[in-house]
Amino acid sequence: MQTYCKNAEILCIGTELLMGNIVNTNAVYIAKELATLGVNVYYQSVVGDNPDRLKKSLELAFSRADTVITTGGLGPTYDDLTKETIAEYFGRKLVLHQPSYDKLCKYFAVTGREMTDNNKKQAFMPEGCRVFDNPNGTAPGCCIQQDGRTLIMLPGPPREMKPMFDNWAVPVLKEGNDHILVSKNLYFFGIGESSLENKLRDLMEKSQNPTIAPYAKTGEVMLRVTASVAKEEDAEGIMAPALERIMAEAGEFLYGVDVGDLQTAAVRTLKEKGLHAAAAESCTGGMVAERLTQVSGASEVFECGLCTYSNRMKEQLLGVKAKTLEQYGAVSRETAAEMAAGVRRVSGADIGVSVTGNAGPSPSEGKEVGLVYVGVDSDTFSEVSELHIRRTDDDAREYIRYLASSHALNEILKAAKKF
Amino acid sequence: MQTYCKNAEILCIGTELLMGNIVNTNAVYIAKELATLGVNVYYQSVVGDNPDRLKKSLELAFSRADTVITTGGLGPTYDDLTKETIAEYFGRKLVLHQPSYDKLCKYFAVTGREMTDNNKKQAFMPEGCRVFDNPNGTAPGCCIQQDGRTLIMLPGPPREMKPMFDNWAVPVLKEGNDHILVSKNLYFFGIGESSLENKLRDLMEKSQNPTIAPYAKTGEVMLRVTASVAKEEDAEGIMAPALERIMAEAGEFLYGVDVGDLQTAAVRTLKEKGLHAAAAESCTGGMVAERLTQVSGASEVFECGLCTYSNRMKEQLLGVKAKTLEQYGAVSRETAAEMAAGVRRVSGADIGVSVTGNAGPSPSEGKEVGLVYVGVDSDTFSEVSELHIRRTDDDAREYIRYLASSHALNEILKAAKKF
Repeated sequence: MQTYCKNAEILCIGTELLMGNIVNTNAVYIAKELATLGVNVYYQSVVGDNPDRLKKSLELAFSRADTVITTGGLGPTYDDLTKETIAEYFGRKLVLHQPSYDKLCKYFAVTGREMTDNNKKQAFMPEGCRVFDNPNGTAPGCCIQQDGRTLIMLPGPPREMKPMFDNWAVPVLKEGNDHILVSKNLYFFGIGESSLENKLRDLMEKSQNPTIAPYAKTGEVMLRVTASVAKEEDAEGIMAPALERIMAEAGEFLYGVDVGDLQTAAVRTLKEKGLHAAAAESCTGGMVAERLTQVSGASEVFECGLCTYSNRMKEQLLGVKAKTLEQYGAVSRETAAEMAAGVRRVSGADIGVSVTGNAGPSPSEGKEVGLVYVGVDSDTFSEVSELHIRRTDDDAREYIRYLASSHALNEILKAAKKF
Repeated sequence: MQTYCKNAEILCIGTELLMGNIVNTNAVYIAKELATLGVNVYYQSVVGDNPDRLKKSLELAFSRADTVITTGGLGPTYDDLTKETIAEYFGRKLVLHQPSYDKLCKYFAVTGREMTDNNKKQAFMPEGCRVFDNPNGTAPGCCIQQDGRTLIMLPGPPREMKPMFDNWAVPVLKEGNDHILVSKNLYFFGIGESSLENKLRDLMEKSQNPTIAPYAKTGEVMLRVTASVAKEEDAEGIMAPALERIMAEAGEFLYGVDVGDLQTAAVRTLKEKGLHAAAAESCTGGMVAERLTQVSGASEVFECGLCTYSNRMKEQLLGVKAKTLEQYGAVSRETAAEMAAGVRRVSGADIGVSVTGNAGPSPSEGKEVGLVYVGVDSDTFSEVSELHIRRTDDDAREYIRYLASSHALNEILKAAKKF
């Protein structure tokens, strides 16, 4: 008999989650995977290692969904009571699962540790369940299907939970599913979330298949276009009209599809074109270099980053003229231009980019907080953009630096496309 | 009339949380703060931007707790419906809040953007609520207290939520409390959370006042010692014996008290001693410089950071010998030493630090992923540490880079203390 999983709830169990000692990365992982599988999720909950509250949470979850996925509380310690509580909820006994017990004995023999009764309880499983093997830990997971309800029980540590979810839970969740969801993520820089929404509101509100949802990141917007289809190859056709409309309205701000971030887009384009870039940074303090080198393989396209915080270093390393610094100041269009040209000359890169500005907290050289110049230099073109990044809270400094580094990465990307 | 907050629930609202597009860092932040305040939390929930389900979640939460803290759904877009739903739940109208409206108008005037009706709705607040000003965004938060229930409504973006929680929600949550909590945060580097716990388990388990709670950060541990006192000046005496014990067991790994992070500790110590530092980075790609320059005032103590990704740049900018690179490779003790000495020579700084290693994803020059050398150089001493950072998952590259940069910052701090 097949049990269909249409609506699932994620129930994460652990007092350390309630106390804020650890971030709930399990919930985000499972939620994302369920979205991909086309299983609806309307609620996530966190409850402590408390049998009464756990039981109430289970009853509630099954009153709203046909499938409940739990994480946590399967360990050997006295406060790990998930399995006991769930078995009781389903009216099942815990019985020794011989393969798990054998594995446990072997584990303790190999590590030379003594196996306590507490450890042994990890091999007792609800009668009649499907046991999920745990190659990364000592606590197995399991699945119970009863009266149209599906309960999937996973361990708490993410490195045990994730592979068990992928290898054991996904096949259960896919049983009887007749459609899949296919998404395209479109990345925009230089347009705010609400401006993008204003242009596309009717489409976002009315389009049912594909659905279109905006996600704001610092200084960026990502649009996710998701089609629900029987076969993967149907997705393209279903998405096409929406994508066309989006490109017409905001294509000029699109920097990549399914690319993840500006630095990955920049590194990819540099690689495709066989180009090298180099960065000279003042107020961003190395963030442009740091972001570029997050991308594995950056070494093929990134020559060097010079973080020249002092004027002396700007002169000595980049050849910025003393007169320029004196006449216009370090935060100026002129200095940015000489920094970009300088780092390109020093490194021999095809594209030189520079950032100089005031990230705060107070005005300096008479330049306001948030005034930033971003320079870009190549054999055939040389430009400087002036930014006014307005923000005054505690995080203003990091925000200004981050946004300035995003602009610099975008300049590298735009420059690389011109080659 | 005073409303006491004893039991709180955290209700995070946002379809992007349910879909797994973002990690719920708000829940962990609020949970930790509530634990510090002595407010109990038995449940956390996540619900989408859906008025029906949000209303049911509110009813449920108030059936279990006297206080509900919501995050999210206060923005200008059509699917942000938290305020409307909560106002309806309490039977209150939304009315224009003039100060918020004026602020909004000013914001749009300054940024030169057009204010749409959607933006305007952010200035409408539930009648009779306490409005929480949002200096970091356009959506204010608020507090409604009615029939013994306290509802605290906060925006979703963490950079708006956190300061609003600290400045506005905490005072509400403290009302009627006759004691205050005073904390000291002790920062450790170079010792793992479980080693620290093993040394201090009895103290952490038994001590009631002060309480002692560990928080693990990447490669670091923070211990929060919290005293519950009638007057602030009583805290020191109550904490003293626990602090003494902690110092005896793990004092050698302590890098600062209430200092926040390694980069702040390093910049402070450099400033106190009137010293300058400079960094030469390979695998960390500018992260040491970026972290140092996060600290406002870093310009007084940080000369420059040279991110020399290619061997050519290591030779040209830092004077690393071609023979050293050829004989030992870029990832070697010898190269690290020459990089540290080189950046110190080039910059004229008192302390030069260097990082060279393999951050992955694959072995290079026959050097394993996670092998990193950190060099430090001054007039009177010169050292290189060899690190083996073991990690193999998807985040390994960022983890190795981050941990390597932490070691470099710690070397700067240790070196500065020697002067």
